[in-house]
Amino acid sequence: MESGTAEKWGFRANEILNSASAVTVRGVLYTLLGNLNQDDPRPVIPLGHGDPSAFPCFRTTTVAVDAIVDALQSAKYNSYAPTVGILPARRAIADYLNRDLPFKLSPDDVYLTVGCTQAIEVVLTVLARPGANILLPRPGFPNYEARAQYDHLEARHFDLLPDKGWEVDLDGVEALADKNTVAMVIINPGNPCGNVYTYQHLQRIAETARKLGIMVIADEVYDHLTYGKTPFVPMGVFGSIVPVLTLGSISKRWIVPGWRLGWIVTNDPNGVLQNSGIVDSIKACLNISSDPPTFIQGALPQILEKTKEDFFSKTIEILREAADICYDKINEIPCITCPNKPEGSMFTMVKLNLSTLEGINSDMEFSLKLAKEESVIVLPGETVGLKNWLRITFAIEPSTLEEGLGRIKAFYERHAKKQ
Amino acid sequence: MESGTAEKWGFRANEILNSASAVTVRGVLYTLLGNLNQDDPRPVIPLGHGDPSAFPCFRTTTVAVDAIVDALQSAKYNSYAPTVGILPARRAIADYLNRDLPFKLSPDDVYLTVGCTQAIEVVLTVLARPGANILLPRPGFPNYEARAQYDHLEARHFDLLPDKGWEVDLDGVEALADKNTVAMVIINPGNPCGNVYTYQHLQRIAETARKLGIMVIADEVYDHLTYGKTPFVPMGVFGSIVPVLTLGSISKRWIVPGWRLGWIVTNDPNGVLQNSGIVDSIKACLNISSDPPTFIQGALPQILEKTKEDFFSKTIEILREAADICYDKINEIPCITCPNKPEGSMFTMVKLNLSTLEGINSDMEFSLKLAKEESVIVLPGETVGLKNWLRITFAIEPSTLEEGLGRIKAFYERHAKKQ
Repeated sequence: MESGTAEKWGFRANEILNSASAVTVRGVLYTLLGNLNQDDPRPVIPLGHGDPSAFPCFRTTTVAVDAIVDALQSAKYNSYAPTVGILPARRAIADYLNRDLPFKLSPDDVYLTVGCTQAIEVVLTVLARPGANILLPRPGFPNYEARAQYDHLEARHFDLLPDKGWEVDLDGVEALADKNTVAMVIINPGNPCGNVYTYQHLQRIAETARKLGIMVIADEVYDHLTYGKTPFVPMGVFGSIVPVLTLGSISKRWIVPGWRLGWIVTNDPNGVLQNSGIVDSIKACLNISSDPPTFIQGALPQILEKTKEDFFSKTIEILREAADICYDKINEIPCITCPNKPEGSMFTMVKLNLSTLEGINSDMEFSLKLAKEESVIVLPGETVGLKNWLRITFAIEPSTLEEGLGRIKAFYERHAKKQ
Repeated sequence: MESGTAEKWGFRANEILNSASAVTVRGVLYTLLGNLNQDDPRPVIPLGHGDPSAFPCFRTTTVAVDAIVDALQSAKYNSYAPTVGILPARRAIADYLNRDLPFKLSPDDVYLTVGCTQAIEVVLTVLARPGANILLPRPGFPNYEARAQYDHLEARHFDLLPDKGWEVDLDGVEALADKNTVAMVIINPGNPCGNVYTYQHLQRIAETARKLGIMVIADEVYDHLTYGKTPFVPMGVFGSIVPVLTLGSISKRWIVPGWRLGWIVTNDPNGVLQNSGIVDSIKACLNISSDPPTFIQGALPQILEKTKEDFFSKTIEILREAADICYDKINEIPCITCPNKPEGSMFTMVKLNLSTLEGINSDMEFSLKLAKEESVIVLPGETVGLKNWLRITFAIEPSTLEEGLGRIKAFYERHAKKQ
């Protein structure tokens, strides 16, 4: 039997998928990892993505591990779950979020997803329709761009303002929106900027969205990870002003991104999303999608209710220390500038001063050379929408962070433009 | 602040999603469950869907539970996994499938998914392009129809032939295919028919697909669940004749559908899928999708390698006994006819003889009334593509199965047309 050839078979790559995928953080990180120098004996220092779980100081609580073991060993959760999630898990998430809300969510407002990634996928799929557009932050989280591109939902970008603590440029939002705009996305605490929005700014966002007749998608995957002067306020607080879809997860606060348990929550005390059919379409989308494993859902009530405050405060203390180290060390490196000390999430954005460097002409070139020469991974800002900036995570072991920033300084000194 | 209304906000349901979702098994089961008589003191007997895990006789092996506990407690799998899955899990699946293949899969041929549901989603997403069509079996598994509809991939249906042990009508396949046909789907062991294809029939399928220049998507989620005279042969055996994408999962053989661990495998010794870019598009799709939890991936090598043969053989024995009971009892109920005794999977299709019934005019009406009067759930055949048939699962505790079929007989006797 002769072997077939691609021409004969006539199969083709799916170009829309390929180009949507190319803009993700994952795609760019794979490129950078491919550029490492295999002969460098030093360990790779990953400042490119937000996953501290590999570091012993960021190990999750035994409460969470034990909850999963208990659920698994009970043999009560081997079956398929309802598409929206099992009731005890939905109720536990509603109760968890209700601690910070002026009105009360019901379990029916909660939909379980396979991490926040699937939450983004479901929400953008539901909102896509011919001609529609969605307003996304710049810089932002490129999974939104990738999914919008795949769903033929036009992405329009409003700016986050570095000189105003990365607040939303609300005039820009008003200028971008038209009758085909369906929603705006905010990420708070901020990825990639490490900022935290005040109550007053969130209220202005709500009022702007209401004026424009669009909903707010509030990505709160970093909820409660704040360690500066601004406390975390959930966007759902303003659900009576504007319908809010909150996206969340246990990935970050419990430091278990690999467990893949997230949620979509409708903050909609006026029933706008219910009455317009958006809620039915969320259920329809979940009906044709896969679910988070049932035993992880089964463990969720214990995880949310029993985790001790000292686990959270220990994480916050390490992140605060790491943010301090990060900000101070960045200030000692002339080729990068950090406009705002991070107060939340696990990231900061730094501006790359290319004029101080010899033979490096872009953020991507900087990141590629840094990977090759110093075995340090940082994310080129163009990946998150800001060309010639860098996204740096500090959510790693503090001593490793110091080492990584020291290597960036050495890299700068080797490549500094001669006066 | 006045409350918003749907009109004012201008949000709308996503009709494509809603209609795609309406045709799923889940959607129809929810309708039937909604029709139960809450005053019936008898337990509901679920013959409508394939999830035996709730019954003690179908409890999964402790080997699998312990593997997950070990992976979780090791704290080595709390991080994000690579989009294609972690290498040890990919290698374990390749080794597992290689036991039955004439050539050797490499770990690079394996992509981990969130259950077989996500495997279907990814494969259909990759193959969708304007004008393309895909050949699906009738009767079949409606998730394919739902996903195809959502992806704007035209579904064309070939028949499975009840008089020939539910073999594929290959003349029909040839008549349906044209230059825009990208693939044909087979489900073996069969859902919903409970048939198992012979080596010879699978070879004819491969040769037909080769002649047409289309790939074969082989849904083998029920792999090895056979208990008749025909042994299970994986379609990948014919990978040198035609490129085969095998979809699989631990859900059925390990009786843990709620664990949500599945895979896509490229059986492609001639490199057709690789060279044509299909493989890159699978990776691209996974790059913008969520993953199965890392610790479940971490447990997979132990699960696949350490499960004892007696666990599998016990399951097979119970299914054989249940299939016997099912077939014999169905033969005692004049309003339904089973053309082939099931030899694999967990289902059988029975023809509804409406002429024997008074006041029941369709399979849906039969199922709705049966749910209300007897608290027995069976799936209307129209859900799987065959109007006025029923899909019945026998993968439940045998005594409960007997009780359920007894109730169907009583239902018949109450509704039998008077001569």
